[in-house]
Amino acid sequence: MAPQYLPSLSSEKKSEFINSFDTIVSDCDGVIWRPEGVVPGAPEVINQFIECGKRIIFITNNSTKTREQFYAKVLKYGFNVSPENLYNTSSLVAQYTQQNLSSNKIVYVVGSPAIASELDARNVKHFGVGKDELYEDFFENVNSLKIDIKDNVGAVVVGFDQHISYVKMLKAVTYLRNEECLFVCTNTDEVFPTQSKIVLPGTGSIVAGIQVASGREPFIVGKPSTYVAEALKEEKNIKPERTLFIGDRCNTDIRMGNLCSFTTLLVLSGVHTFADVQKYESSPKAEDQQSVPQYYTDSIFDLCIK
Amino acid sequence: MAPQYLPSLSSEKKSEFINSFDTIVSDCDGVIWRPEGVVPGAPEVINQFIECGKRIIFITNNSTKTREQFYAKVLKYGFNVSPENLYNTSSLVAQYTQQNLSSNKIVYVVGSPAIASELDARNVKHFGVGKDELYEDFFENVNSLKIDIKDNVGAVVVGFDQHISYVKMLKAVTYLRNEECLFVCTNTDEVFPTQSKIVLPGTGSIVAGIQVASGREPFIVGKPSTYVAEALKEEKNIKPERTLFIGDRCNTDIRMGNLCSFTTLLVLSGVHTFADVQKYESSPKAEDQQSVPQYYTDSIFDLCIK
Repeated sequence: MAPQYLPSLSSEKKSEFINSFDTIVSDCDGVIWRPEGVVPGAPEVINQFIECGKRIIFITNNSTKTREQFYAKVLKYGFNVSPENLYNTSSLVAQYTQQNLSSNKIVYVVGSPAIASELDARNVKHFGVGKDELYEDFFENVNSLKIDIKDNVGAVVVGFDQHISYVKMLKAVTYLRNEECLFVCTNTDEVFPTQSKIVLPGTGSIVAGIQVASGREPFIVGKPSTYVAEALKEEKNIKPERTLFIGDRCNTDIRMGNLCSFTTLLVLSGVHTFADVQKYESSPKAEDQQSVPQYYTDSIFDLCIK
Repeated sequence: MAPQYLPSLSSEKKSEFINSFDTIVSDCDGVIWRPEGVVPGAPEVINQFIECGKRIIFITNNSTKTREQFYAKVLKYGFNVSPENLYNTSSLVAQYTQQNLSSNKIVYVVGSPAIASELDARNVKHFGVGKDELYEDFFENVNSLKIDIKDNVGAVVVGFDQHISYVKMLKAVTYLRNEECLFVCTNTDEVFPTQSKIVLPGTGSIVAGIQVASGREPFIVGKPSTYVAEALKEEKNIKPERTLFIGDRCNTDIRMGNLCSFTTLLVLSGVHTFADVQKYESSPKAEDQQSVPQYYTDSIFDLCIK
């Protein structure tokens, strides 16, 4: 069914729409904030919902903050969301790794200090975070390369890493040659939502390089993975028919919302445009069809109860 | 048809096989040399063929050397191959870019100094080669990012770059947002052939990241692209039915050889194993079927005329 433009509803229909949900699950980057700052009006709308007794859950694929830092940002921008209703991938990836890592094994991390902190909090041993560069004359010295490859690595965890380098890719791929070594990624978002003229490549671009060179398929904890969806449904006892999912990306946010049988709303304030929606709509692939939202609108502010 | 194991031929049949070719086109990395050094016996076999009057052509997807440096390496290892019979992707990518770049435009290069030299030799203006890193606190300062984005970039050229970094990916992807900006890559080999326990990611892993974040399909000059195949066929006036193509990779070397209607021989001294051949054989995809060699053997040395 073609997605419906929310502002085309009468104010009565709009109230009916909003009243049909007890729980609103929202993405963050591109919906409530962007690298440039908070999306205008987003805190007002979210706090209005909370005052009306709705449960608000934030779920982000961003792995550059710990859960604690994520909560601090939520507070800083004035969202009255409870810390137990926040899901982020640095925390999810650490949780999954702890649950699945063989004993006596350690983790090689291509990612942020936030992932390191979340692994530390769960007593999972790891290494790799921070700068790791190659000396100048790599190919001339490939025979005598002094690269330390450890023999007790049981997982390669990949998230956003601003220090991504050739030697980091080399190490990740070398560890992944062992088929028993887990390959766990936070998310595969291709870019960060930004309104600047600069395009910010996302974790997906880092994952793709390691995936291609290793020939391995990663396990993804973030949206649209069922890992985070199941965690959400179990822990929060969610009724899908009374839940709205808001996101700015079709193939992560909206797809996960649809897979969970939530009502889905795409906001055009982030990565995907209406032209993208039409591309997904006209694709014959099942996963593209699952990425088409039921509703769309320009900004989360359009949900404001006037 | 199932590939035939060359050593299973009688010595009479093997002579017949070798005599059926005037021209032998061979890949380099993984066939005649590896990062560790020359493949034992390779110069003897190649020079034997030259003495018998066969034309030998070397064609490599490697972009880390200029054509001149490539020739120096050929000489160093004792191959008596003429410089006009050498094809490499730093030179091919510069040639393609010169032919297709709009006037007054410049090139952003993610790649080696060799690509820079080949562009210089053709008077194509470029920038980007060498280190380019991010300052420490990227995400905290994303609003005030001081990244110089030029407005006259007409092509992004991507080859192997040991200094690949986040800021290089960001610049490439930002330039590629302009649909008129060419996206030209040397090759998409996933890894370099090596016998060390370290896996060396190839240009394909760098291309994949930029491809994912830009949503653009690159033009590839290296094998199995028809660009290099056409150059070869036109310049060298090759008779496909009298030509043998030797390579260590199914999806680049062998595929190109088959697309050119050459006889194809896979050597198992590089990237692909016989198990890989069987995977391609059993795949229903046309491009995988095109990647199955007609013959295979352990090393190029098996072609030695005793």
